[in-house]
Amino acid sequence: MALKAQVLYDFTAEPGNNELSVREGETVAVIDQTVGGGWIQAQNSSGQTGLVPEGYLQVCNVSGEGGAGSWSGGGASVTNTDQWDGRTPTALEYDDAEWDDDWDDQSVSSYHGNDQLEVEGGASGRGLQGPSVKISLNKFPFSKGPSPEVFLLARPPANGRDRLPVYTGDVGPVWLYPASPLDCVIADPKKESKLYGLKSFIEYQITPSTTNRPVNHRYKHFDWLYERLLEKFGSLLPIPSLPDKQVTGRFEDDFIRMRMERLQAWMTRMCRHPVVSQSEVFQLFITYRDEREWKAGKRKAEKDETVGPMVFSLIEPEAAELDVVQVEHRCELYSRFTRSMDDGVRELLDVGHTHWKRCTGPLPKEYERIGRAFRNLSTVFSSSRYPGEETLTDALTAAGKTYEEIAQIVAQQPQKDLHFLLETNSEYKGQLGCFPEIIAVHKAAIDKVKEADRLISAGKITNSDRKCMNQRVSCMSYSLQAEMNHFHSNRIYDYNRMMQFYLEQQVTFYQQIADKLREALSQFATL
Amino acid sequence: MALKAQVLYDFTAEPGNNELSVREGETVAVIDQTVGGGWIQAQNSSGQTGLVPEGYLQVCNVSGEGGAGSWSGGGASVTNTDQWDGRTPTALEYDDAEWDDDWDDQSVSSYHGNDQLEVEGGASGRGLQGPSVKISLNKFPFSKGPSPEVFLLARPPANGRDRLPVYTGDVGPVWLYPASPLDCVIADPKKESKLYGLKSFIEYQITPSTTNRPVNHRYKHFDWLYERLLEKFGSLLPIPSLPDKQVTGRFEDDFIRMRMERLQAWMTRMCRHPVVSQSEVFQLFITYRDEREWKAGKRKAEKDETVGPMVFSLIEPEAAELDVVQVEHRCELYSRFTRSMDDGVRELLDVGHTHWKRCTGPLPKEYERIGRAFRNLSTVFSSSRYPGEETLTDALTAAGKTYEEIAQIVAQQPQKDLHFLLETNSEYKGQLGCFPEIIAVHKAAIDKVKEADRLISAGKITNSDRKCMNQRVSCMSYSLQAEMNHFHSNRIYDYNRMMQFYLEQQVTFYQQIADKLREALSQFATL
Repeated sequence: MALKAQVLYDFTAEPGNNELSVREGETVAVIDQTVGGGWIQAQNSSGQTGLVPEGYLQVCNVSGEGGAGSWSGGGASVTNTDQWDGRTPTALEYDDAEWDDDWDDQSVSSYHGNDQLEVEGGASGRGLQGPSVKISLNKFPFSKGPSPEVFLLARPPANGRDRLPVYTGDVGPVWLYPASPLDCVIADPKKESKLYGLKSFIEYQITPSTTNRPVNHRYKHFDWLYERLLEKFGSLLPIPSLPDKQVTGRFEDDFIRMRMERLQAWMTRMCRHPVVSQSEVFQLFITYRDEREWKAGKRKAEKDETVGPMVFSLIEPEAAELDVVQVEHRCELYSRFTRSMDDGVRELLDVGHTHWKRCTGPLPKEYERIGRAFRNLSTVFSSSRYPGEETLTDALTAAGKTYEEIAQIVAQQPQKDLHFLLETNSEYKGQLGCFPEIIAVHKAAIDKVKEADRLISAGKITNSDRKCMNQRVSCMSYSLQAEMNHFHSNRIYDYNRMMQFYLEQQVTFYQQIADKLREALSQFATL
Repeated sequence: MALKAQVLYDFTAEPGNNELSVREGETVAVIDQTVGGGWIQAQNSSGQTGLVPEGYLQVCNVSGEGGAGSWSGGGASVTNTDQWDGRTPTALEYDDAEWDDDWDDQSVSSYHGNDQLEVEGGASGRGLQGPSVKISLNKFPFSKGPSPEVFLLARPPANGRDRLPVYTGDVGPVWLYPASPLDCVIADPKKESKLYGLKSFIEYQITPSTTNRPVNHRYKHFDWLYERLLEKFGSLLPIPSLPDKQVTGRFEDDFIRMRMERLQAWMTRMCRHPVVSQSEVFQLFITYRDEREWKAGKRKAEKDETVGPMVFSLIEPEAAELDVVQVEHRCELYSRFTRSMDDGVRELLDVGHTHWKRCTGPLPKEYERIGRAFRNLSTVFSSSRYPGEETLTDALTAAGKTYEEIAQIVAQQPQKDLHFLLETNSEYKGQLGCFPEIIAVHKAAIDKVKEADRLISAGKITNSDRKCMNQRVSCMSYSLQAEMNHFHSNRIYDYNRMMQFYLEQQVTFYQQIADKLREALSQFATL
C-alpha cells in the first residue's frame, strides 16, 4: 500500500527542478522517501509526480500503534500553533542533510533496529518549527530495540566514572548539581564556505563560562550532539529538539538571528541540566581543543553503549528502595502532571498565537484608520477659511498622528512581549513532548516487575532476579523523581521570569499609549 | 409598474399577525403603502404577501431624477454605518403613526403639491437610526412647489415681526444671537396611557432655561415641531431629523434612555440656533401654558405661509449687495466644504463602528482567553506538590484574573468613549445631509439670476425685476454665509469638546490597564 502524506503548507515548485507544487491540506501519495536531501518524491491526485520538501508533508503513520504517549503530538506532526511567529516557510532546504566529507565516519551507532524510526524519528522527520519530540513514540515499548528489561536484568557496565548519584534534598530526590552553574554564550554567526565556495554554512561561536574559551560549531554539529544526548538520556530526561532546519533564506539575517536565539535557549537549558551538562559528550562539544580531540571524542561518543534504558544502570540513589506500588503511584502522578501542563501550555500558545495575529494585523490597521480619519477631518476643517480654526486643526492632526504612532506601537508589541512568552512555552511544549516517552519506559519497567511472579512460576527468572528487578525499578523511580524535581524547580524559575517580563512589557506598552494620548489631549484648547 | 423595495434588515413575522418574514438584501414588491400604522404590504419573490415594517424597507425611487444633492445619502436611505451602536432593531412599530383623537386638525399645511413627497419625504420614510434628511431631495428645483423664483420675484410679506437680520461680525455675516443662550433639559420620561390603557406612550418633560417652567411632550409632538421647522427653515439652514421612531421594546429602559439622550442632543442643537430658537413655533413648543394656547399656536404654525424659499424674504442683511459671481463663488465653496466634511464624518463613523465591534467582540474574548490560560496553568502548577509553588501560582492566578478584568474594561470602553464620538458625528452627518438641499436652492436661484438677460430679451421680466432678483440673491447669500459661520463656530466647539472627551476617556482607559497590570506584576516574586 502506498504511503499517504498530508500537505502542511503551500509549496510552489521551482521550474526545471523536478519539484511538485502542492497546497496546504492536499493529500499526496508518497512514492519515495529515500531520495535524500530533505526531499520526498510524491504524487498528487492528478497523477503528477515530483519532489516536495519533507517538512511540508506529514507522512501518515502506517502502523496502527497509537498507544501510550500519542497525546503529545510529538514526532513529525506540526500544528499551526508552532507557527506563532508568523513566518511561513517558503521552501525547505536541507543544509545539513549529509555529513561533509571531512567526517567520514557516518556510522551512527544504533542500538535500535526499528525500521520505522528511520522515517519517523530521523532528523528529517522533525517538526518544522519549535522543539518537538524527535524520537519515535513507538520505540518503547513497541520497538525491537532494547526495552527496560535489558536494564532490569542486565549486568551493569563496569565503568563507574559516569555514575549519576541521586541525593535526598529538601524537595526529595535530586541530582548532583555542580558547584558553579555552567553557561554558554552563542554568538558571532559567520558565513563560511568550503569546496571552493560551492557549499556555504553558518558557523557559531560557543563560549562556555567554565573555560571562557570559544569553540566553533555548525548547526549540524548541534544536531549531532542532540542525537547523542537523545540516544543516551532520552529515557531518563527530556531532550528537546533543536530549532528546525529550514529555510530558504537561511543566510538571511532574521533567520540567523532567530536560529541563534533558539540554539542559545536550547544550550542554556542543556547547560542548566546537571546530568547533561556534566556528561562527557556535552563537555566534549563545548571544550574540545582541536580537530583531533573533537574527532576522537566524537567516535567515542558514537560507540557509547550505556544508552537507552541502560543509562539507568548509572543511577545511584541514596535513599531506601521503593516498592513497585510506590513507584507506580509516582509515575502516575508525573504522567498526569506533564499531560495537564502540556494542555495548559498549548492553550497559552494557541491564544498567544491568535493574539499575535490580531496585534500585528487588524488592530494596528484600525488604529491607523482612526488616525487617518482624524487627520482627514483636520484637513477638511483647515479648508473652511473660518478664523481661529488652527487650534483645533493642529490638535486634531496631532491626535491623528498619535493614533498612527499607536498603530506602530501595537504592531511592534508582540515582538517585545509575546515573543518571549511564546518562546518559553514553545520550549516547554518541546520538553513536555518528551515525557510520554519517558513515562512509557517507566511503565513498561513497572509492568515487567509486576509480572515477576508469573515469570518465576514459568521458570524464566529466579527469585534473586526479581529482587534485582525490584531494586532497579526503584532506582529508575528515583531518577524520575530527581528529574521531575529538576523540572519543577526550572519551571517555577522560568514561568516566574516569563510572567514578570511579559507584565513589565505590557505595563510599559499601556503606559506609553496613555502618555502619548495625554500629550495629544493637552494640545486641545481648554473650553 | 409595481414599486420595489430593498429589505434593510431581517424581520421575522409574528405568527397570526398577517406579517411577512424578510431577509436583509432581499427585494420585495410593494403592494400597498397606505395600510398605515408604520406598515407596508409587500410580496416576496415566492409570491407570499404580508406586512413588513416601513423602516425595514427602502422603497426604490420611481422617478429617474437624481439631480443635485444626490451625494448626501439623505432621504430614506440607511447605511450600515447608521447602526454603529450595535443594536439591531427586531421589529418596528409606529407609536405615533396617527395623531390621537385629541388632535382633530390633521390637515398638514402643504405649500408643496408634489405627490412624490408623500412617499419619500413623509415622516415614515425617514432613516431608521440617526438623523438624516427628511425632505425630498427632488423638491427643489424640480418639484411643482414654489422654487426660488417665487422669492426672487414675489412681493415680500407685510409682516415685519419675524425679520431675520444678518449682521457683519468679526467672521463675516452672522445671525442675531440672543443676549442669553437658550437651553432645554429633557428629563423624567413617564409612561402614560389613554383610551382606558389601550394606548400607551412616553411623555417627556422639557424645561427651558428661560422660563424654568417644564412642559410635557410626547415624541410625536417633537415630530410635529420637526415638520414645522423643516417646512419653514429647510431652505435656509440644516434641520436634522429626530432620532428614529423604532422599536419593539420602546418602553424598555435602554431604548427610552437612548431616545431621550438623542432628543436632548437635538433640542440642544435647536436651542443653540439663533434663528430656530427665537422662532414663534419653537417658542410655542417650549413655553405654552395650557392646552388651549398650544392648540391655537399649533393651528397658527400650520398656516404659516412664510415657508420654503419664502423664508428668505425675512432676511435683512446689513452689508452691501453682492453680485451674482461673488454669490456663486461662495456657494461653491460651501458646497465643497460640506461635501468633504460629510466624507470625513462618514469615514470616522465607519472606522468607529468597526472599532466598536472589535472592542466589544473578539478583543475582550481574547483577553479573557489569555486570562483563563494563565489561571489554568496556575491550577496545573498547584497540582505539582512541589514545595514553594504557592508564590508563583497565586501570582499567576492574580495575573489571569487581571486579564479577565481587562476583558471587561475593554468591552465596556466603547460605551464610555466611542459612544459620544459616534453620537456627535452622527449628529453632524445628519446636519451635513441637509446641505445639498440648501445648496441646491441657492444654485437654482443663482441660475435664475444668470438667466435674467435672456428673460429680459424675451420680455418675461423687466429691468427692475432683474435689479430686484440681484438684490434678493445677495440676500440669500448673506443668509447662507451667516448660517455657515454659525455652523463653523458650533463645529469647532463640538469637535473640540468631542476630541477632548474621547482622549480623556482613552487616557483613563489605558492608564487603568497599566495600573492593573503593574499591580499584577508586583505579586510575582523578585528573582
